[in-house]
Amino acid sequence: MYGPGDVRVDERDEPDIVEPTDAIIRVSAACVCGSDLWPYRGIGIEGLEWPAPMGHEYVGIVEGVGSDVTTVRPGQFVVGSFWATDNTCEVCRAGYQSACINRVPMGALGAQADLLRVPLADGTLVATPDIPSDDLIPSLLSASDVLGTGWFGAVAAEAGPGKTVAVVGDGAVGLLAVLAARQVGAERVIAMSRHDSRQRLAREYGATDIVEERGDAGVAAIKDLTNGLGAHSVVEAVGTQESMMQAIRSARPGGHVGFVGVAHDVAVPGMELFWSLVHVHGGPAPVRRFLPELIDLIWNRQIDPGKVFDLELPLDQAAAGYQAMDQREAIKVLLRP
Amino acid sequence: MYGPGDVRVDERDEPDIVEPTDAIIRVSAACVCGSDLWPYRGIGIEGLEWPAPMGHEYVGIVEGVGSDVTTVRPGQFVVGSFWATDNTCEVCRAGYQSACINRVPMGALGAQADLLRVPLADGTLVATPDIPSDDLIPSLLSASDVLGTGWFGAVAAEAGPGKTVAVVGDGAVGLLAVLAARQVGAERVIAMSRHDSRQRLAREYGATDIVEERGDAGVAAIKDLTNGLGAHSVVEAVGTQESMMQAIRSARPGGHVGFVGVAHDVAVPGMELFWSLVHVHGGPAPVRRFLPELIDLIWNRQIDPGKVFDLELPLDQAAAGYQAMDQREAIKVLLRP
Repeated sequence: MYGPGDVRVDERDEPDIVEPTDAIIRVSAACVCGSDLWPYRGIGIEGLEWPAPMGHEYVGIVEGVGSDVTTVRPGQFVVGSFWATDNTCEVCRAGYQSACINRVPMGALGAQADLLRVPLADGTLVATPDIPSDDLIPSLLSASDVLGTGWFGAVAAEAGPGKTVAVVGDGAVGLLAVLAARQVGAERVIAMSRHDSRQRLAREYGATDIVEERGDAGVAAIKDLTNGLGAHSVVEAVGTQESMMQAIRSARPGGHVGFVGVAHDVAVPGMELFWSLVHVHGGPAPVRRFLPELIDLIWNRQIDPGKVFDLELPLDQAAAGYQAMDQREAIKVLLRP
Repeated sequence: MYGPGDVRVDERDEPDIVEPTDAIIRVSAACVCGSDLWPYRGIGIEGLEWPAPMGHEYVGIVEGVGSDVTTVRPGQFVVGSFWATDNTCEVCRAGYQSACINRVPMGALGAQADLLRVPLADGTLVATPDIPSDDLIPSLLSASDVLGTGWFGAVAAEAGPGKTVAVVGDGAVGLLAVLAARQVGAERVIAMSRHDSRQRLAREYGATDIVEERGDAGVAAIKDLTNGLGAHSVVEAVGTQESMMQAIRSARPGGHVGFVGVAHDVAVPGMELFWSLVHVHGGPAPVRRFLPELIDLIWNRQIDPGKVFDLELPLDQAAAGYQAMDQREAIKVLLRP
């Protein structure tokens, strides 16, 4: 990305093994993230250096590994998280790999590319049982971030059996939070969406109810569906002030908000949070925590998260992919190098 | 309270049974709450009508009950929460009695008085096994709010075995959060206090470490004590922007902040909360959830929370009690009608 709105596909030097814990992978598929749209739209770009390599979601075949790497080997198909992490520090062991004390953001390395260096390969990459058939690749790619993030949203919101879960946001993360909520056993899942095609996918993923209203009207609709109390669990998958307040206000006292939208220009009023008695938890998803389970569900075709990709382009048309997502013409764009 | 800084002891009509679920109690002891100091200092008083009855913490002897009351009877010594609650609605059953759909704030009735009407007596009051000896009264009174609130702070911060807990605030609630954290099994409890007498009481209640610094320096001190990671659990018991941020910043990724200070003029920046990956939960404590357990611990003299009362005055000197707490000459003032 050369600046807001300016995406180009350039030649760069091929990456080499730098640290003995590195791996190099040949990227089979990468994609454009909702969070890539923030700099594309010129938001939160203070301190960014242009041109910036882009992309932090990837699956691919291991080409080479450093001398310390023991859990993946050349020729394997791997899925990695959008953070490279050691998966051994105290924070990782507590399940918060996205705050690993040695983490490296994969976005800085640029996964929208043919080849990618993955630091801390043992802690970052998970190999699939075999080379996947082509139709599984979108779903496996989704596990790298967007499924893992929706999953974390549902887990952070304590979705589970007997619970009513509301999901604010009908982007790929929101839709996959619907899928996650049902997978972890939620009884009722309310998708908040006003787009036909997204509503349809939400239903496919297990949404039991759709609420089209937003803001206060959306909150009122959630209360109407929950005896006036609000949902037990709410996933916030947008990252704006309005969506965050909609999420907090849609949860019942003692309920849980899991927020995974990158919270740009959001300020949560302490007094309202105090009186709401809701739990709030979120942040960059510790996708690595969930990867083995998610790969397993995909491999066994129990879930089909890859459906969120509704546009596939060759990597050299990346700019068109950004544009389609920015204009909401596509939910999520898959790029094939 | 006739206005900020203006506390008077007046004659009012004796309360009567209004609803068949009411009880009337003769107050044995009441007290001044940290939250009573907010209007005393003129903060958050928009919409208040003067004079306002004051006090929401109380223990006493049941004088009379309405026809529907079945769990307490005249002559019993009772402890109640600062909210009158039905303890049967869905929210109460989930443990969030402070958001009971039928709740009544006891402060509006005025517990700093000889006689007090308690709505929803069955759901609000818990009788002690017998009439307590006089030395137990301060501790039982503390269960009505300040102990229950500190306890909720520790529970909301998920204090427990193997955990390091930091407590921001050395008022009565903070000190009792120290006690609670140890009672629920925390391994290490760091009290943040710069006052000798409060530090001593914190140590008595089980604090293993004291941090005198505040703000960024306080956060740095907590990190120094926790391998640079921060505490697993942090209780926020002040309610200011500085204390809230100190709490969030003192917690490790994946850690928990339990906030029980009334969050005046606090705004939590979404981006910082996002990147912190901490859990935040708090609000008005559902004291009723904990009352049976707390009364039991006090009755069996396993805990002595009443030590937070370092000034006892007859009710007719209530004004002096407010002044002493406002000037931080007393941690907590007990009033005897």
